[in-house]
Order: sequence, then C-alpha cells, then structure tokens
Amino acid sequence: MLLYDSPVSGNCYKVRLLLAQLGLDYERHEVDVIDRSGRAELLGDLNPAMRIPTLILDDGTPLAESNAILWYLAEDTEYLPGEKVARAKVLQWLFFEQYSHEPHIAMLRYWLSIARTAPPQSRIDAMRAGGFAALQAMDRHLSRSAFLVAERYTIADIALYAYTHVAHEAGFDLSEHPAVSRWLARVAAQPQHIPIDA
Amino acid sequence: MLLYDSPVSGNCYKVRLLLAQLGLDYERHEVDVIDRSGRAELLGDLNPAMRIPTLILDDGTPLAESNAILWYLAEDTEYLPGEKVARAKVLQWLFFEQYSHEPHIAMLRYWLSIARTAPPQSRIDAMRAGGFAALQAMDRHLSRSAFLVAERYTIADIALYAYTHVAHEAGFDLSEHPAVSRWLARVAAQPQHIPIDA
Repeated sequence: MLLYDSPVSGNCYKVRLLLAQLGLDYERHEVDVIDRSGRAELLGDLNPAMRIPTLILDDGTPLAESNAILWYLAEDTEYLPGEKVARAKVLQWLFFEQYSHEPHIAMLRYWLSIARTAPPQSRIDAMRAGGFAALQAMDRHLSRSAFLVAERYTIADIALYAYTHVAHEAGFDLSEHPAVSRWLARVAAQPQHIPIDA
Repeated sequence: MLLYDSPVSGNCYKVRLLLAQLGLDYERHEVDVIDRSGRAELLGDLNPAMRIPTLILDDGTPLAESNAILWYLAEDTEYLPGEKVARAKVLQWLFFEQYSHEPHIAMLRYWLSIARTAPPQSRIDAMRAGGFAALQAMDRHLSRSAFLVAERYTIADIALYAYTHVAHEAGFDLSEHPAVSRWLARVAAQPQHIPIDA
C-alpha cells in the first residue's frame, strides 16, 4: 500500500498508528501541507477533496478521508467491535471528530504551530470556543468510561487521540480536562503504539 | 424509535428520508435550530455534540451524528453495499459531506435562509468558495458515474442529496454543475422518496 502522508498531520498519523498496530507494511509519499500548489495534479483523480491522507490499496484503488481509511483497515480486527450498536457508536465519535473537534483543534494548531500565519482574531476565538466544547464533551464521557466505545480501545480512540494529544500546540490546556488526560495515557500505553513523529 | 428532529435541517432530513424508504415508523420531537437554549438539558446525556438529529432506539440507546445514524439503519439493507471497498467508499463520501460540504453549504443556507443574520463577509466568502469546490468535486465524479458509489443508490447519495438539493437557498447556482443536477433528479426519482418538508 502507498500512503500520501505528512509527518505533522494528525489525520495522517491516525492511519500510520493503526497500520503500526496491525503490523502492516506500506510506503510513504510525503505531501506538503503548507504549499498546496500541485495538489490537483497529484491527488485530483485519487481524492475528491484533494486532501491527505490518501491510501492506495495494493490493487490500485484509492481511498480518501482518514476515518474511512481507519474503518477499512480495522474491519474484522480487534480495533473495531462486531456488535451493531457499538459499531454505530464508533462511527458517531468518528463523525464527532471530523465535525466538532478537528475543524477547531487541528485547524488552530495548523495556523499557530505549522503555517505560523494566524487567521483573523474572530476565527481564532471561534476555534478556541469550539475546541474547548469538544474537549469538554470528551471529558464528560471519559469521566464515566475508560475508552470512547465499549470499554475497549478502538479506532474511535485512535481518531480522537491524533489531534487531542497535540492540542497544547493549539494553545489548549489539557489540565482543564482531567479525564481526557488520563485517557491519553491509556491510549499511549497500548501495544505497538507509535508517536506522531515516528 | 424517537427522532429529535427539525423540519428545516438537512441532517435530520437524511434520517427521515432513509426511514421512509425503509418503511420504518418513528416519533418526531421537534427541536428549535435557532434558539439553542435548553440544548444541554434536552440532549446533554444523549449526544456529546448536543446536535440534531439524535435517534433514540427502541431499547433507549441514543445515537448521534446523522451519517452514523444512516449507517446504523442501512446496515444489511439495499442502501449499503456489502463489499468491503464499496463500504469504505460510502464512508469516504459521508466524511466528505460532513467536512467539505455541510460546513459550507448547510451553514451558509442556515445564515441566509433560516437564521437570517449573516456572519462577517469574510466567512460568507469562505463558505461560498468551499461550497463551490465541494459541488465541483461532486460534479467531476458524477460526470462519470450515475451514483456516488458502486453505480447504485446508497446512503452516500442520501447524505449528499440532503443539502445539495437546497443549495440554491444558500445562493449556489446548480446550473454550473450539470452532472450534479442530473444526479439530483435520479435521487428524487427513487422509490418512496419524500421531500424535505414531508
């Protein structure tokens, strides 16, 4: 398999982390996340949104969207439950991550720590408020559960770990979310865990 | 089943449309999408993001995120393929919808046609550009395929139909996206189709 990848992207890290835990080999093709010229030529036929990660399967089929890739790789493994309601809850958290978490925490990290060119203050304020609300929602849930779904480590935890564990790079203070902090340590202690810069 | 619902929400319409096509009965509890006070009391224990739709299953289990609800309801029906790559492609388009389409087209429709209190012009411009790019990506794909995945009607089509068919309420001109316009007609012609205001 070939992964169109960036070492600083949490969305790409999700896929690298699961591939490591599954013990699967793959090649990496690094894509620039700041200079986006050339994206149409590189990814236009592979990914409607021209984003990374994009995974090319061994038969040449391209697969886009980090959380769809996680689901594809985790199917029939210990990282995705087989029970119907538990599977729907995994998906619920995957969509929560892409709608209520990533656009705030990952985008603010991108502007402040990667691109280093800040958007207007009103956008920063909106991302801070949205990110804080997402962390609060996670903290409330994780104060009652060891993991996000079914009391076990799943791709829901992988998806939300990716940008939560670097939320301080977006200026968020995780000490305000103690159940999230304890959960981050549980996720990092899973077998075959790798860091984002591996 | 009980659906926390709004008649103007495309995210809720997705669920109502699939429930109609599956022939399933349910109750509707209308939730205000403009006045969001009281959301924590109403949905705080049911939905981490406190959004609608939220579906309460017959055993009392709450399920959040429109596209996770679609997946749960469509599993083992004609609206979700059984083949692994096709399922991943359905998920790819569901995540595309929530990340690259809904935040632009649905949000702009909300501000211009529902709340009628516009955000700053820079936000409007960003939503117009993002929405146009999403419609272009769909148009490119649909110029080669009758439906989004596997040449058949699936929940990927339902999810993207919901806000695309009312994109004119956000000021988008669908005549600029002819393959999308033809696909909208194909989706509306499916058996047991219902309109958003049904």
